[in-house]
Amino acid sequence: MTWISSLTFPFQLPLLATAEAQYAPIVLTGVLLSLVIIYIASKVGAEISRMLDFPPVLGELIAGVVVGISALHLVVFPESGATASDSVVMWILQAIDDLTPEAVTSIFDSQSEIVSLLAELGVIILLFEIGLESDVKELQKVGWQATIVACVGVTVPFGAGTAGLMWFFHVPAIPAIFAGAALTATSIGITSKVLSELGQLKSAEGQIIVGAAVIDDIIGIVVLAVVASLAKTGEVDIGNVIYLIVSATVFLVGAILLGNLFNKAFVKATEILKTRGNLIVPAMIFAFFMAFIGNAIHLEAILGSFAAGLVLDETDERNELDEQIMPIADILVPIFFVTVGAKADIGVLNPINPENRAGLIIASFLIVVAILGKVVTGWSVFGQPGINRLAIGIGMIPRGEVGLVFAAIGTASGVLDKPLQVAIIVMVILTTFLAPPLLRVVFGEPVSLEGEPEGVMEKVDAVK
Amino acid sequence: MTWISSLTFPFQLPLLATAEAQYAPIVLTGVLLSLVIIYIASKVGAEISRMLDFPPVLGELIAGVVVGISALHLVVFPESGATASDSVVMWILQAIDDLTPEAVTSIFDSQSEIVSLLAELGVIILLFEIGLESDVKELQKVGWQATIVACVGVTVPFGAGTAGLMWFFHVPAIPAIFAGAALTATSIGITSKVLSELGQLKSAEGQIIVGAAVIDDIIGIVVLAVVASLAKTGEVDIGNVIYLIVSATVFLVGAILLGNLFNKAFVKATEILKTRGNLIVPAMIFAFFMAFIGNAIHLEAILGSFAAGLVLDETDERNELDEQIMPIADILVPIFFVTVGAKADIGVLNPINPENRAGLIIASFLIVVAILGKVVTGWSVFGQPGINRLAIGIGMIPRGEVGLVFAAIGTASGVLDKPLQVAIIVMVILTTFLAPPLLRVVFGEPVSLEGEPEGVMEKVDAVK
Repeated sequence: MTWISSLTFPFQLPLLATAEAQYAPIVLTGVLLSLVIIYIASKVGAEISRMLDFPPVLGELIAGVVVGISALHLVVFPESGATASDSVVMWILQAIDDLTPEAVTSIFDSQSEIVSLLAELGVIILLFEIGLESDVKELQKVGWQATIVACVGVTVPFGAGTAGLMWFFHVPAIPAIFAGAALTATSIGITSKVLSELGQLKSAEGQIIVGAAVIDDIIGIVVLAVVASLAKTGEVDIGNVIYLIVSATVFLVGAILLGNLFNKAFVKATEILKTRGNLIVPAMIFAFFMAFIGNAIHLEAILGSFAAGLVLDETDERNELDEQIMPIADILVPIFFVTVGAKADIGVLNPINPENRAGLIIASFLIVVAILGKVVTGWSVFGQPGINRLAIGIGMIPRGEVGLVFAAIGTASGVLDKPLQVAIIVMVILTTFLAPPLLRVVFGEPVSLEGEPEGVMEKVDAVK
Repeated sequence: MTWISSLTFPFQLPLLATAEAQYAPIVLTGVLLSLVIIYIASKVGAEISRMLDFPPVLGELIAGVVVGISALHLVVFPESGATASDSVVMWILQAIDDLTPEAVTSIFDSQSEIVSLLAELGVIILLFEIGLESDVKELQKVGWQATIVACVGVTVPFGAGTAGLMWFFHVPAIPAIFAGAALTATSIGITSKVLSELGQLKSAEGQIIVGAAVIDDIIGIVVLAVVASLAKTGEVDIGNVIYLIVSATVFLVGAILLGNLFNKAFVKATEILKTRGNLIVPAMIFAFFMAFIGNAIHLEAILGSFAAGLVLDETDERNELDEQIMPIADILVPIFFVTVGAKADIGVLNPINPENRAGLIIASFLIVVAILGKVVTGWSVFGQPGINRLAIGIGMIPRGEVGLVFAAIGTASGVLDKPLQVAIIVMVILTTFLAPPLLRVVFGEPVSLEGEPEGVMEKVDAVK
């Protein structure tokens, strides 16, 4: 109930045991306001981007930067080093209710945590939708190509990055390996969203990119485990590495092999159920359960929901499910992209700040390696004459949030000094923001999407 | 990223400043598992309820009781007095990752807070949907009847409850007034959902009930402010009471009068926007903004989203919006009903516990007053010959979470002793659970919903 804490009682509420519960109505006010800001930013960004003939998701990312830590401070998070006093939303809440400093901190933390979790649910739903739109047979057909693209896309930037840092910049081995590792992972969320917007998700190029990005994500987890244990103890924890490789393989392959069983159970469930939500609720149960498993075995939630989408893609209910998942994705996915932008502090791009200069020079090198190291992967594709190799390479460029995790862990462990840390962040921001317009250029005009105002049905058709 | 805390680093992550952010991957695991449990419970409950010819929402509430604090402890909340060690989800998380006791508490609090907030978003979306399905002109037609029903439904239970407690049970004046006040408010969420399920939302009875429940909610806020200040200081804070009455009236009437303006802006926006979500995102911006305003001026978020739904009901885009809001409601609304059940501790109904006995005797009295005091409201309707008066009265019965807030605040202020507190909680639980089957009986067979398996389209038609 919203009025509990709005009335000024001098006593604690015993039924509301935690500070969190006590401030719940004000946290709700803050979350609602944040969502309104995020939605407005996402729509304004997407529309401007579309008018300029860029993919809408690029606009959402940039709109996130505008409302985030780099500029307007409307949507900020503790992870970016922001405190409650940096948040405009918190100022507004403070103006509405006269809050104590502890209350402000507690509410800011809660609200940030909730918006971040909604963003996580957004990317889980996005990957479920991408899974639904992907064709498991088509993916299997390009499976070997995708695996090779992923392996090349990990090895080349890793090797070139580490060697270059040691050779040109005289960085010691362990930080160089760490920074090289940060160049490996591909952000599946950003690439797949752009592919979907360009109507290229089901093309051979699109399927290779998505497949390779999934494999890349798994390799990224393994690489992180390796370099983190290297940074910590100077040795590699072989047991953990083997565990991660085996569990990831068993999970994905198992999910797809058992797909037929899941399929039949799902179709059966939707037939038996007669109350509202008979299709979407079982689908969400499956997607969230797989995401839970993915997270629980220390892989990623998004791998689980992607596998769930792939499996349900094979059912007859697919088209109806596509239509019902769309509005859910429409309200959750933008939260993810806007918060990715909002958390990126582009202040590190400012060369006037002397702290950033050394980092920017290293960053220029890392960006070149990051782009070329992925672009070459296109030429590792075999047996697909006439395929757009440049498009595949460019599709693998965005590092997204994965690279930022490397920077965070490297900094925390004391392995990365300030310039290297800035360099990695700059590399992540630029690869993330460059990929969408580049993809747009190499793929040419979007398939069947252009010109007309889009209703739901047109969009469904366009995606199919 | 899910793997940050799954790798055991000996150091803190400085980029993840708060404990909340540090445990984020595990919190996500817990939220996903909780959602899977909630969805399974809601579907099992709804289907069984439907087979037994009860409204599905009753099944969701009871399923919530089964998975909640009263029985299986799968979904529990700190508000019900549960700690992390009472939560089965936390046991599972503990088994997956070896967590410290502080980590367990922090994760449990975060996870509970997030699920509660998703439930709040669920009831906000529910009332938005109810607003969309309500007809503002029809509501205006029954406006006076609804106002009288609401006033009678506040005055009779309040007067009879307070007088009876003082007369029969020798309760002192202030606690008697507090308990009487707890009998006044109607839970709009439960009633409107049942009406919708019975296909009765657009009937004259349905519109009077919804209108009266909205007015009741506002009166409830004012009554709470009055009795709370009475309990605190022995006097009534007239200024606050006037503020609440004026702001509620201005807000609701203002929203409806300005509806035409909002309408045109909304239609214009959906025409200009060409990217995905061009209809649903502006609708959510409007709904969440109104909910934000409702919360910010110390009314309720659900009043705001209800007003937003009423306004957008008048647009041409209504049917498309109805269809798109449905899957969103299908995955958010069950979280609300299951958590309402999960938070209700039906242990207070156990007469073997001597602590409960005095409360149960008072409870029997309060329940009779709670039911009869609302049933009589049906006979206050004028100028509607042939209307189902009993249905209107019964529609006003469920007290839902509103009554629990009275119990919480009364207990916190020391006004209510243990028996009165138990009596109020029992009264709230029974009125909430009795109303759906009773409504089903007085309305007879559901309109056009019976027999056939429901696809989305049939459901949309049934509601219209």
